[in-house]
Amino acid sequence: MSDNQLANKSQAWSALFSEPMSDLVKRYTASVGFDQRLWRADIAGSLAHAEMLSAQGILSAEDHAAIQRGLHEIAAEIEAGQFDWKLDLEDVHLNIEARLTERVGIAGKRLHTGRSRNDQVATDVRLWLRGEIDEIVTLLTAIQRVLVEKAAEHADVILPGFTHLQVAQPVSFGHHLLAYVEMFARDAERMLDTRRRVNRLPLGAAALAGTSYPLDRERVAKTLGMEGVCQNSLDAVSDRDFAIEFTSAATLVMLHISRLSEELILWMSQNFGFIALPDAFCTGSSIMPQKKNPDVPELARGKTGRVAGHLMGLVTLMKGQPLAYNKDNQEDKEPLFDTVDTLKDTLRIFADMLAGLTPKPEAMRAAALKGHATATDLADYLVKKGLPFRDAHEVVAHAVKSATAQGVDLAALSLDALKAFDARVEADVFDLLSLEGSLNARNVLGGTAPAQVRAQVERHRARLAS
Amino acid sequence: MSDNQLANKSQAWSALFSEPMSDLVKRYTASVGFDQRLWRADIAGSLAHAEMLSAQGILSAEDHAAIQRGLHEIAAEIEAGQFDWKLDLEDVHLNIEARLTERVGIAGKRLHTGRSRNDQVATDVRLWLRGEIDEIVTLLTAIQRVLVEKAAEHADVILPGFTHLQVAQPVSFGHHLLAYVEMFARDAERMLDTRRRVNRLPLGAAALAGTSYPLDRERVAKTLGMEGVCQNSLDAVSDRDFAIEFTSAATLVMLHISRLSEELILWMSQNFGFIALPDAFCTGSSIMPQKKNPDVPELARGKTGRVAGHLMGLVTLMKGQPLAYNKDNQEDKEPLFDTVDTLKDTLRIFADMLAGLTPKPEAMRAAALKGHATATDLADYLVKKGLPFRDAHEVVAHAVKSATAQGVDLAALSLDALKAFDARVEADVFDLLSLEGSLNARNVLGGTAPAQVRAQVERHRARLAS
Amino acid sequence: MSDNQLANKSQAWSALFSEPMSDLVKRYTASVGFDQRLWRADIAGSLAHAEMLSAQGILSAEDHAAIQRGLHEIAAEIEAGQFDWKLDLEDVHLNIEARLTERVGIAGKRLHTGRSRNDQVATDVRLWLRGEIDEIVTLLTAIQRVLVEKAAEHADVILPGFTHLQVAQPVSFGHHLLAYVEMFARDAERMLDTRRRVNRLPLGAAALAGTSYPLDRERVAKTLGMEGVCQNSLDAVSDRDFAIEFTSAATLVMLHISRLSEELILWMSQNFGFIALPDAFCTGSSIMPQKKNPDVPELARGKTGRVAGHLMGLVTLMKGQPLAYNKDNQEDKEPLFDTVDTLKDTLRIFADMLAGLTPKPEAMRAAALKGHATATDLADYLVKKGLPFRDAHEVVAHAVKSATAQGVDLAALSLDALKAFDARVEADVFDLLSLEGSLNARNVLGGTAPAQVRAQVERHRARLAS
Amino acid sequence: MSDNQLANKSQAWSALFSEPMSDLVKRYTASVGFDQRLWRADIAGSLAHAEMLSAQGILSAEDHAAIQRGLHEIAAEIEAGQFDWKLDLEDVHLNIEARLTERVGIAGKRLHTGRSRNDQVATDVRLWLRGEIDEIVTLLTAIQRVLVEKAAEHADVILPGFTHLQVAQPVSFGHHLLAYVEMFARDAERMLDTRRRVNRLPLGAAALAGTSYPLDRERVAKTLGMEGVCQNSLDAVSDRDFAIEFTSAATLVMLHISRLSEELILWMSQNFGFIALPDAFCTGSSIMPQKKNPDVPELARGKTGRVAGHLMGLVTLMKGQPLAYNKDNQEDKEPLFDTVDTLKDTLRIFADMLAGLTPKPEAMRAAALKGHATATDLADYLVKKGLPFRDAHEVVAHAVKSATAQGVDLAALSLDALKAFDARVEADVFDLLSLEGSLNARNVLGGTAPAQVRAQVERHRARLAS
Repeated sequence: MSDNQLANKSQAWSALFSEPMSDLVKRYTASVGFDQRLWRADIAGSLAHAEMLSAQGILSAEDHAAIQRGLHEIAAEIEAGQFDWKLDLEDVHLNIEARLTERVGIAGKRLHTGRSRNDQVATDVRLWLRGEIDEIVTLLTAIQRVLVEKAAEHADVILPGFTHLQVAQPVSFGHHLLAYVEMFARDAERMLDTRRRVNRLPLGAAALAGTSYPLDRERVAKTLGMEGVCQNSLDAVSDRDFAIEFTSAATLVMLHISRLSEELILWMSQNFGFIALPDAFCTGSSIMPQKKNPDVPELARGKTGRVAGHLMGLVTLMKGQPLAYNKDNQEDKEPLFDTVDTLKDTLRIFADMLAGLTPKPEAMRAAALKGHATATDLADYLVKKGLPFRDAHEVVAHAVKSATAQGVDLAALSLDALKAFDARVEADVFDLLSLEGSLNARNVLGGTAPAQVRAQVERHRARLAS
Repeated sequence: MSDNQLANKSQAWSALFSEPMSDLVKRYTASVGFDQRLWRADIAGSLAHAEMLSAQGILSAEDHAAIQRGLHEIAAEIEAGQFDWKLDLEDVHLNIEARLTERVGIAGKRLHTGRSRNDQVATDVRLWLRGEIDEIVTLLTAIQRVLVEKAAEHADVILPGFTHLQVAQPVSFGHHLLAYVEMFARDAERMLDTRRRVNRLPLGAAALAGTSYPLDRERVAKTLGMEGVCQNSLDAVSDRDFAIEFTSAATLVMLHISRLSEELILWMSQNFGFIALPDAFCTGSSIMPQKKNPDVPELARGKTGRVAGHLMGLVTLMKGQPLAYNKDNQEDKEPLFDTVDTLKDTLRIFADMLAGLTPKPEAMRAAALKGHATATDLADYLVKKGLPFRDAHEVVAHAVKSATAQGVDLAALSLDALKAFDARVEADVFDLLSLEGSLNARNVLGGTAPAQVRAQVERHRARLAS
Repeated sequence: MSDNQLANKSQAWSALFSEPMSDLVKRYTASVGFDQRLWRADIAGSLAHAEMLSAQGILSAEDHAAIQRGLHEIAAEIEAGQFDWKLDLEDVHLNIEARLTERVGIAGKRLHTGRSRNDQVATDVRLWLRGEIDEIVTLLTAIQRVLVEKAAEHADVILPGFTHLQVAQPVSFGHHLLAYVEMFARDAERMLDTRRRVNRLPLGAAALAGTSYPLDRERVAKTLGMEGVCQNSLDAVSDRDFAIEFTSAATLVMLHISRLSEELILWMSQNFGFIALPDAFCTGSSIMPQKKNPDVPELARGKTGRVAGHLMGLVTLMKGQPLAYNKDNQEDKEPLFDTVDTLKDTLRIFADMLAGLTPKPEAMRAAALKGHATATDLADYLVKKGLPFRDAHEVVAHAVKSATAQGVDLAALSLDALKAFDARVEADVFDLLSLEGSLNARNVLGGTAPAQVRAQVERHRARLAS
Repeated sequence: MSDNQLANKSQAWSALFSEPMSDLVKRYTASVGFDQRLWRADIAGSLAHAEMLSAQGILSAEDHAAIQRGLHEIAAEIEAGQFDWKLDLEDVHLNIEARLTERVGIAGKRLHTGRSRNDQVATDVRLWLRGEIDEIVTLLTAIQRVLVEKAAEHADVILPGFTHLQVAQPVSFGHHLLAYVEMFARDAERMLDTRRRVNRLPLGAAALAGTSYPLDRERVAKTLGMEGVCQNSLDAVSDRDFAIEFTSAATLVMLHISRLSEELILWMSQNFGFIALPDAFCTGSSIMPQKKNPDVPELARGKTGRVAGHLMGLVTLMKGQPLAYNKDNQEDKEPLFDTVDTLKDTLRIFADMLAGLTPKPEAMRAAALKGHATATDLADYLVKKGLPFRDAHEVVAHAVKSATAQGVDLAALSLDALKAFDARVEADVFDLLSLEGSLNARNVLGGTAPAQVRAQVERHRARLAS
């Protein structure tokens, strides 16, 4: 290893090796470094718990008032950035409780009556995640609106529709954008289904078995706007399904983003040249002066792996854990937090970037004319003239072969040439073999005809208005 | 490598190397080897499609009748195991269509009018998966019922409740079983949410852009019992969200199974000895004559990885795919099929195995007495006598330390000994320090008191009756 | 659910529900359905074990001869497809042992002396996997050879090199293919590293603790061509690292295949048109008569998810398992088998498909001329004339902007126009601004100059010859 | 949503929504927030690059001297915490280069000659990772040493060996610990294999195609202690295999840690009571005063998911990326950094914690006497008396059944009782049926006999001394 100077230096310099073990253990086991972002939920939960303890006569009115005052002061401290988070106090809960006792004395020591950190942290994470889901649904609505208005604007712009990345049939650019609206609409639906299972109250489960105090758990649930109470104390403290379900729903959002990103990157490449993206979402090169790179879609495509990794991490985390609470569960937070951050940043940036997307219709049209995109229309034409579909498909395959041999598009063959393949072909066939003819013909519910696109736009506008 | 005889032989013998390339490509790209299990859905979809084509005047009554007859005959052939699946015909769709034309002639060639394999396969998978979800929900109901009745039977049996696998507080064995009822109830709820997104009709999207035939897609949806029509043709053929969402819901089921399995395995080990499982679910050893191993729970715990792997495989599959259909999507089927099979087998076996589970209350009680399980009750007692919770917690910690030093459980300390820690302790404390006292005290909604367990049993019975 | 006819039917028809529980349990726990593919390794292991037992005097010469004869007869039966695999006998090991006793009587019952199925199955899987790794390395060599010869043939063909899928700099098509040779070479290296850890002998660990018979484990290892003996019996029976390490190496192979596939698909699309693939590796459409789809690369890209899923499944499987052997481990086989099959099929097909790949140099050249691909060369030119690189980069950015505004490539600007950006530009600049000039200039080790490509071809040929 | 006060507040307060889009994009695309940890590698790489440029006459001696001085000053600034990292300068590379030009003027602008950020960042990550691998191998050695010394100390302590978590056969506690030594030894081996593929030089690949400057790449490789040069420029900038291979090796380390953690947690639970862990690695409960929870092993078991998630994230990241560099790759760093941190912290803590582990031999012995752990020894005894193994297995099964019916261990049956099952049993059988007798009998290479354990200890000591 004598030639590995860097490694030696790095070893010599490593801060890690000089950290005393007790500090390392403290840092390893403490969560306050990341769970302090739950403070708002923690205080909301404590306020609701104290209110109920007081209503049930477990806490005196004076103690309740002191706790309320103390918690509001602490909230103000934290918002002002003046709260001193201490690693020694492990987590957000003990930090806030300790500070409360400092501020209001003995009343603070009474707040933890009838609860445990096990049910407290589960409550905090659920409250926090509920709020984040609401923000994400708002962002999903915003990105859908941008896409719907772009689709309205470009319903008549013709793009080559691909299957297998081969030119298949002409489609409306607006129609293509609306495919993503469907995906993000499903995402929002899924988020709201998840929200129902997030928005239930574990508090009152205490450590694992419930408590001997006469708590009114439904009162706390109502105060916190929750839809119900977790009905089994062991499940309440050990359940992390909601984290996995949310991360799975987030992974689907990112998969949609990854597909859209892949297309934006393709469309931006010189060989397509279908779109321009605003400069603000692209960057240059440190060496190649001519480059304008679609950095934002590339990064977003990459971040799909990040979120999918968090999903797999959480699944592995929960596998084989016996009931009830185990310390392993502390590891649920960082992936959840990072998933939420990634999702919100990405959706917000994409809504803005897509609003600035400019299609280049000539390049799209030129590309659509490259692959006999209306061959299916010729087959359908022959079917309507009485040929069974399978036979029509065969006839057209021969016509395409001949056009390819001549180096022209199918639509450029003469009437006589087409008649040679099947005598039923008449002059009216050319209405269908044009890109517009093909497009307009697909006037079925969900089809690409501009009339259908406009109808979908109206449906989405109405849906997203509420 | 001269000493590696096996490898050499294996190389020499390998069938693969003598397979002509065209056969290998055919096998590599064909799906009929696994997608034939979709035949029932494929025929149902074709019948509904033909019925609509006929109603819309696209197909004559004679052709429709011929198609109906032909498809029913094919269904009978397949059920009888007499259908000859051909690799050359690639997939279930072409196999059935080719056989149809063989049987009914030209009418068969007209069936594919206005559709493509792209929308056909998406329809088939959704129809099939909807039926499987219904079976899974039935199996989830069955396993819940078994657990609820076991819980009813053993509401008064006392188990040491663990956190961190350390004895924490006594819990009712019935209460512990009901925790799993909550999990499986959430699973069923999630499956039904997923079903709503599965049960939508892609048919009519054709290859990717819709079709030029005047299809009535809503009629087909109604015939097939679907809740709606996919509103965008590009999305209809390229969407595999439903497969991922289902596999994610299935992964959660398996995670619950893995947690339950872990506990069954622990409880079966001689150091716990909390339960017996029926012999039918255990096996012996080829070398150790005395072994009775909990094979079924172990395998089920292992199969969690299998399903989680399928989830991750599907996520990776869809990442970065441009619209619309790509051949990659053919890879959605095998993980989906295996997930469904694994889930159904596992749930069915577990329902039966749990019905045969026998708790051993003495061993549970003995274990519950090992870890000062009622220490929290002493703290709560002191709080009710006026001590703030945090101070009571401190007092009890000293009492536990003293009991541990004497090698006895906290509950075995004398009144005088307890009084020495806090003068407020009276003789009534011993009511709470017994396991039964502790259990009964947790009479809060969701708590472990047998009264609560019985109330939950009634709630579940009512819920599961419908 | 009354409208869900299919689901009802499916429920009614379901074979599963009528399967008696004992059969289901048998099928669920048995492995013979998939592990019979280990038969060759199982027999090889048994022969080596018997030979050693005999040499150690634990088995008589007669018994040894009987066992040898019996096992060879069984091998012949299996190869001839005449072996009757029985589910009741659980696995490949008991099936073969039972048949041996049937054939040779009491000697068969002596074969299992000093071993257990726990060490036997670990030995079988390792022996089998070693052989498969050798085949995979052979296939990796084959695909490298194809790529190297293609690279030799097309060293002078110019392709636009992309970063961010934007035209960056011209590269040799041969150079581009050699990038994949590097990847597959690393894969082979990694497989051979894995092989060393696979090729160790667990046999002799017995159930978990070793055995009381005086076995000579090193003799068995030598007979089987293994590099060493597992040195700890508990580790020997519970270790599945080799399965995970192999599947991880396989995932990397598939990631390389996925990147190559992505490029082949792009290059085949009409907007690139850079290559043609042989018809044998493409398929058509059931609806669009003109399509020629790159099915093989698409499927292979999809199969990346499959193998990555198996990796994640195996990781989840092993997480948190206590020592020593648990039944969970039976779940290691199917993902491993499917990974091997997928890898071998894919590599073999790709070697053949790549041999038939035809580049289209004109389309590549036309694309390379679209993005100011030689802008870096202008910057380098200026640096050589004394400008610091960062300033040169700036100057060229202005020139590119001007060329873009005029709708021409940078190389098409006049000398005067270029001089206007920096007076140091002379007529010799045009040598560098041509695609060939740029290509030839990158004559550094590992660079794209055809001279470098040819040197690499020679290096690879020498390396792959052995 | 009117009852969801928290969500509304959270929405109102959200900092995100008031962040101007351009700042968000900047933060989203910049990497300096996390890649600054590469500074030491970045400077080492730049120094080696400059030295070579100077040796090749591309850089003047004055410029070289200025760059050297500037970079050393910057290193001092960073170490002193006085370097001002700027988000506007995107990444660690541009931050350092900009500062260099600030300090040394025009010479700084010449440093980037013949390189690009694409090859620079790949070089930085490889250099950094090489150093981390060296630290990890050191930590793996340290944990092995602790385990080996514990094993030496407790070679004669008897633990019940489990398969299926059922008592199987007695094993030496030292032997059990040595199983983990095997795992960590394999991990170190694997890390060093990975290191060989990490330790290659991409620098000189420039953006993707190599460079037109006459660089001496092998000189740079030698200066940096690298084992070779990446032989293809496209591969050099786009390859992230080393990150995946490393993360996979790290996942295996964490899987071993998860298995060990699972056992420590089991052994700490009151029902086993096999060990004590030092207080420093455990924590208490906020509600249950009596608890001492094994937090460190629990967290470590949970962190297995974290690392496995990073592996899956990286696999998903690279799937389907076309050559050469794409911005997606920036997402390789955070999972890699977090994997390294998690691994180093965990290994260091475990080495210390294991050093403080205390076995409780009486509890282990009591447990070993519960499950007829020496039944195999009775079978082996009968085999040595001439019974075929399969028949002996059968005889012992009957004896175990009888002992179980009488509620005693097999070893407690009388000679007459044993003789009743097979007349060959003599008084010497009791030597084998004791735990010690069984243990000592397994005196085969890799077996659990204390003599074998001590031999392994010596082998490991010798191996780890170097």
